[in-house]
This record gives sequence, C-alpha cells and structure tokens, in this order.
Amino acid sequence: MIQCSYICVFGEEDTVGNNEKKVPEVVIKRLPRYYRYLSDLSAQDVHRISSGQLSELMSVTASQIRQDFNYFGGFGQQGYGYNVDYLRDEIANILGLSDGNTMIIVGAGNLGSALANHASFEKRGFKLVGIFDSDESKVGREIRGIRIMHQAQLAEFVREHRVDIAILTIPSTAVHDTAQLLVKNGVKGLLNFSRAELDLPKDVAVEHVHLSDSLMTLGYKIKEYQK
Amino acid sequence: MIQCSYICVFGEEDTVGNNEKKVPEVVIKRLPRYYRYLSDLSAQDVHRISSGQLSELMSVTASQIRQDFNYFGGFGQQGYGYNVDYLRDEIANILGLSDGNTMIIVGAGNLGSALANHASFEKRGFKLVGIFDSDESKVGREIRGIRIMHQAQLAEFVREHRVDIAILTIPSTAVHDTAQLLVKNGVKGLLNFSRAELDLPKDVAVEHVHLSDSLMTLGYKIKEYQK
Repeated sequence: MIQCSYICVFGEEDTVGNNEKKVPEVVIKRLPRYYRYLSDLSAQDVHRISSGQLSELMSVTASQIRQDFNYFGGFGQQGYGYNVDYLRDEIANILGLSDGNTMIIVGAGNLGSALANHASFEKRGFKLVGIFDSDESKVGREIRGIRIMHQAQLAEFVREHRVDIAILTIPSTAVHDTAQLLVKNGVKGLLNFSRAELDLPKDVAVEHVHLSDSLMTLGYKIKEYQK
Repeated sequence: MIQCSYICVFGEEDTVGNNEKKVPEVVIKRLPRYYRYLSDLSAQDVHRISSGQLSELMSVTASQIRQDFNYFGGFGQQGYGYNVDYLRDEIANILGLSDGNTMIIVGAGNLGSALANHASFEKRGFKLVGIFDSDESKVGREIRGIRIMHQAQLAEFVREHRVDIAILTIPSTAVHDTAQLLVKNGVKGLLNFSRAELDLPKDVAVEHVHLSDSLMTLGYKIKEYQK
C-alpha cells in the first residue's frame, strides 16, 4: 500500500498499482485535475483541444501532458488535438468514476459534516451511504437525507453493505483501530484526514489529506513572492 | 502567480518563486511533509537520521531526498546522516513557519468551522485572527475564542490588521469578488477550497484544495489494487 498525503509526490521511479505498466504517482495525481478541466471544457461546449491549449489552461507543459497520456495509450493524435468528451470519459474510466464508489464518513464533526455536504462527490460517482459518530447526541440527525448512525454499528453496516471507501474524520487516536475494523470488514480504500499513519494490507488504498500542508506551502510562496 | 490544487504537480521545469535559484513545485510540495516527519522524529527523541532511514520512513527514494535538500544547500553530510532538529528548523525557516503568518477564515460553515478548530495550524505558526460570514445568524458566535464577524467588516478588518492569509470556505460564486477585495486590502496569500479559478496579481500566492481530487485518486488506486 502506498500511503500518500496530498503533498506526497514520489519520484518518477515510484509507482502505484500492480498492473504491468507502472504509472508514476505524480501522473496519477494529475488525472483528477485533467478530469476537472475537461469536464469544465465540455460544459462550456469546447469539444476539441490541442495539448498546447490544454497546457496553457492547466499550466502544465504540453510535453508533460503528452507524456502523462502516453501511460494510457495517448488518447488520439496531438496534431489534430484531443476530443474533449472522449478524453474526459477515458480519464473517468481510468479513475473508476464510471463504476461508481460507495463511501461512508466516520466522524460527523464539522469536517465530516462538510464532506457529507460536498455535493461534487456525488457528481464524481462517489455515493455516500452512511455517516457514523461515537457521540450519542449526533446519532439520528440527518445530513443530506442520510441518518447519522452510532459507531458501534460500523462493523455490521460495512459487512452488510458494499462500502468501497471510508472517509476518516475522527481524532488520530481513534484512527488505527477504526481503520483495522473497516478493512477487516471489507472496505477497500481509506481517505484519512488525521495525522495518524496507517499500517494496512498492501491491497488497501489509502490517501492522506493533511490540511496544514497546503497552508505551509502557501507560507513558502508568500515568502518567495515578497522577495 | 501559480495557482495550484493539492494534486497539481508541475514538471521539474515548472517552478515557483522569483528568487535566483528556482525550486520546482514538486519539491516545495514535499517540504511540509519533510517538516512533519522531522517534527515527529524529534518528538520521539530521534536526533540523527540517514537519508536512507528517512527515505524508508517517508517512502521517497534517498536520491530524491538528497536532490530536494540540495536546492537549499544540502543540510549536512549524508554519510554522517542529518541532524533532525537542525534539519527541521532549517525547513521551518524555508517554509517561513518561524516568521509566523496571520490568517482569517472567510466562510464559517462546517468546513470553515472545522479549519478554525484545526489546532495544528497554530502549532505551525499560522495564527487565526478573524472569522467572517455573511450569515447574520452566525455573527457573534465564537470559535476557539474568536468571534465571527460579518463579511461587511472584511475589508476594514484586513486594512487595519496585518492579515497574511485568507482561507476561503465560501461558495465558488462568491470567491472572485471576495478574493479581489482581500488582495486589494493587502492579503498576500489565499487558500481556496472552492472550484473557482482565480486571476490575481503575480505576487499573490494561491493554493487550491480540491477535496474531491483525493477521492478520485483513491478511486484509481482501489481499482488498481483489485486487479
């Protein structure tokens, strides 16, 4: 399993997945961004774009875009430009968005509630099927029509429903045991917002989101730009 | 200005900052992660570490670590290993953590409230000095002792207080005007959680956090790992 905070960027030699053709982590992390830009273009009725135009739009070099796409077969001639809708759909398939993923949120505090209300997740094919909290006073409340359940029901719920992803918005101290329980009961991927590192089987996907890292990056840029 | 979502990873040719020695965006994005690991090591009374050990701990190759550190002068001999506290402090300086940054949160919904409660920000030298919302019913409430002010007071507050960073947790539709107002009144950096792209002066630092991108990356990994 590759554990990865959102600023964790491996070198080209580091890859993810156990398929023949290893795709570098940096490329994987660019896919959602490509998907977003292509979705926006399509919504604006732009149906063909050159790698040059896409490069300008995304502030990524055209050669980088071509290199990235080559990991997945290239997606059509460059001279001719890319078919926006085709490219968006291909990337959606690569990301597994078309299959759809079910997810639960464990921890219904402010962050968990914010994520439960994050409508764009559904648009991307991530279906929220359950919200859990250990706080009795929250149990029974609803967020976007989904009733908050007690954390004691977590194992049973995950066993009885197909749950692909669990978003962990609980304190670091609770993360280890909760992650073990979720994985033992069939959850395939974890989105961990806590500082806790996780030691899980190789076939469990984990993404870490460290919100303070983007603040630190911002701090660096502010310092540089004032020079 | 370089706009960057947390998955936006530029190629080595892309850089940030206007100093002589250009540091690639990918390297900058690794700095907070180095800082976190080194802080943890120091807290665990580990005061010397080889690039090999650090590499294993962080799942980044040793050569990558050495390359990264060379952008900033190397930080001591490799054979001998790195002095953890020295390295942590050096990276803290590079990130500007030691100078400290003041920040405000604009948008006191669930996400804004979650971020206002994010204690680790203070530990990293980011001091929350104000919270704003356009919803009258929220004005006057306190989060961690900071009173929520009405958004109408935003410009005046920013003019009268030194505000380095504004965290935007408002709807996309409101982001453009709010960002312009903040920058006009002296804010140097924006952390934007909305989908809205920003067109701001070159000397304004912007980081975008697209929460759905880490979900999409996770979706990809789940698909790969099941193969």
